[in-house]
Amino acid sequence: MSILVVGSVAYDTVETVRERRERQLGGSASYFALAALGRVPVRCVGVVGDDFRQADLDLLASRGADTAGIVRAAGPSFHWSGRYHADMIERDTLRTDLGVFADFRPEIPAAWRDSEYLFLANIHPALQLQVLEAMAGPRLVALDTMNLWIGTTRPQLLAVLARVDVLLVNDGEARQLTGERSLARAARAIADLGPRRVVVKKGEHGALWFGPEGVLAVPAVILDDVVDPTGAGDSFAGGFMRSLALAGADRTDGDTPFRAAMLDGTVTASFCPEGFSVEGLLGADETRYAARLAELLAMMTP
Amino acid sequence: MSILVVGSVAYDTVETVRERRERQLGGSASYFALAALGRVPVRCVGVVGDDFRQADLDLLASRGADTAGIVRAAGPSFHWSGRYHADMIERDTLRTDLGVFADFRPEIPAAWRDSEYLFLANIHPALQLQVLEAMAGPRLVALDTMNLWIGTTRPQLLAVLARVDVLLVNDGEARQLTGERSLARAARAIADLGPRRVVVKKGEHGALWFGPEGVLAVPAVILDDVVDPTGAGDSFAGGFMRSLALAGADRTDGDTPFRAAMLDGTVTASFCPEGFSVEGLLGADETRYAARLAELLAMMTP
Repeated sequence: MSILVVGSVAYDTVETVRERRERQLGGSASYFALAALGRVPVRCVGVVGDDFRQADLDLLASRGADTAGIVRAAGPSFHWSGRYHADMIERDTLRTDLGVFADFRPEIPAAWRDSEYLFLANIHPALQLQVLEAMAGPRLVALDTMNLWIGTTRPQLLAVLARVDVLLVNDGEARQLTGERSLARAARAIADLGPRRVVVKKGEHGALWFGPEGVLAVPAVILDDVVDPTGAGDSFAGGFMRSLALAGADRTDGDTPFRAAMLDGTVTASFCPEGFSVEGLLGADETRYAARLAELLAMMTP
Repeated sequence: MSILVVGSVAYDTVETVRERRERQLGGSASYFALAALGRVPVRCVGVVGDDFRQADLDLLASRGADTAGIVRAAGPSFHWSGRYHADMIERDTLRTDLGVFADFRPEIPAAWRDSEYLFLANIHPALQLQVLEAMAGPRLVALDTMNLWIGTTRPQLLAVLARVDVLLVNDGEARQLTGERSLARAARAIADLGPRRVVVKKGEHGALWFGPEGVLAVPAVILDDVVDPTGAGDSFAGGFMRSLALAGADRTDGDTPFRAAMLDGTVTASFCPEGFSVEGLLGADETRYAARLAELLAMMTP
């Protein structure tokens, strides 16, 4: 099976109360690809600048990412700088330098057009739609977006949503998109826009699944220490899609594989905040994964 | 079996975006007692002013509350006024008139000193300790508190906590009390203060149980419409303690009855926001309760 992701491959400069790390590997496609944990190859489509370290591309490749779709362009790489508050949830964006990402026009390599699973990470919805139209007809399409696109490019977002199977958003975005305060109502309104399956990500409060067969609430694994939560949402998406790909799920299936994928997304995301940048994800091995899945299931069992 | 609650019996004036309701029945002891749903009699200790409507006391009594411990004093009843934001979570306190509650000195009727289950609702910790010392040795003691007491009366709070079995607080209070950002660390720190069992209430994000045998995460029931969330936390506590009393649980038991009680607290609390004041709780009958419990269990089952 094959997963294709289109998103950012970037550098992040992250400050927490304890530490500051400069220009580390980040970006939605990076987290997503590493969240497959090497169990499924992930085809990455993105762009980096001429300042991007080959070692970072090599790291992605060494962990199962196919980086052949990451174009190198002249100019600086996308660089985000942010500072987390002491609660490790609220954060201030200090700087967003789009660099070569500003002119990103995703090109899907011809051999990748038949990819079965497509994840449209958070980029301009017009680009998401172009990617979707370039594909040969994936088994399943999932999409992430953000408040900026919901607020400023709604028509384009609605056009791509009409062709999406699973929408992954946070609770604020679900409310902004639909104008519904109740997440139950919001999920129904989103289904009317296209995606019959909705994942509402709530950070430390876990994630909710809304599907044709009902609702599933998955708590977040409770961590003793949060080092850097950046990328946890994309790590969730990576674990979720890896699970669906391994199960061979498609849009005609009932909710069962999706509910299982919610657990895999949650467990995968739980490793991300344990280190800066992608270090937490890199620390997830089979043994720790199994232990944490058992811990999660125990938390859900009355 | 017998449950005794000490807390406020009050009037609330609540404003939401849609509606304003004046001087309706409220207070922690009122919600707690009605949350027993008439399945267990609840002995209420509190004070009301000479303006308190007999009809409200009669309502409590008609639903299984024993109001013999509610003293009537000269002066106005405790009256809280608040305004909810559009999100129905954030709220501004417009006014707090303590009235006769300011001089409340709980008197436990002699015949009630042998009550088996004791809930110390959110009042001054010195009063909570006096009540505890007046009892003959309850099977189980649970306590609620708030940021005010954590911040201003910490020594008194620690004195009573040392003798409490179950602490029910919200996530911000757990963090304030312990200085720990991680709720897992906070629960361990609270266990060192006395309560080996901690319920962390998170409103629409559900509730967490931390006990000697592990963690349970219970999501909140997702409502289509929230009319007035006032009292949901006390309703949770009422459902939780009713469940433990019906199970005959005590502090030597394993986590099993407490984990079941988390479900009962959650289901009970879910009715509260469906109406103003105690109206939501009054709308909970056996059939709706069973349906909602089934809904909650489905939400927790991968």
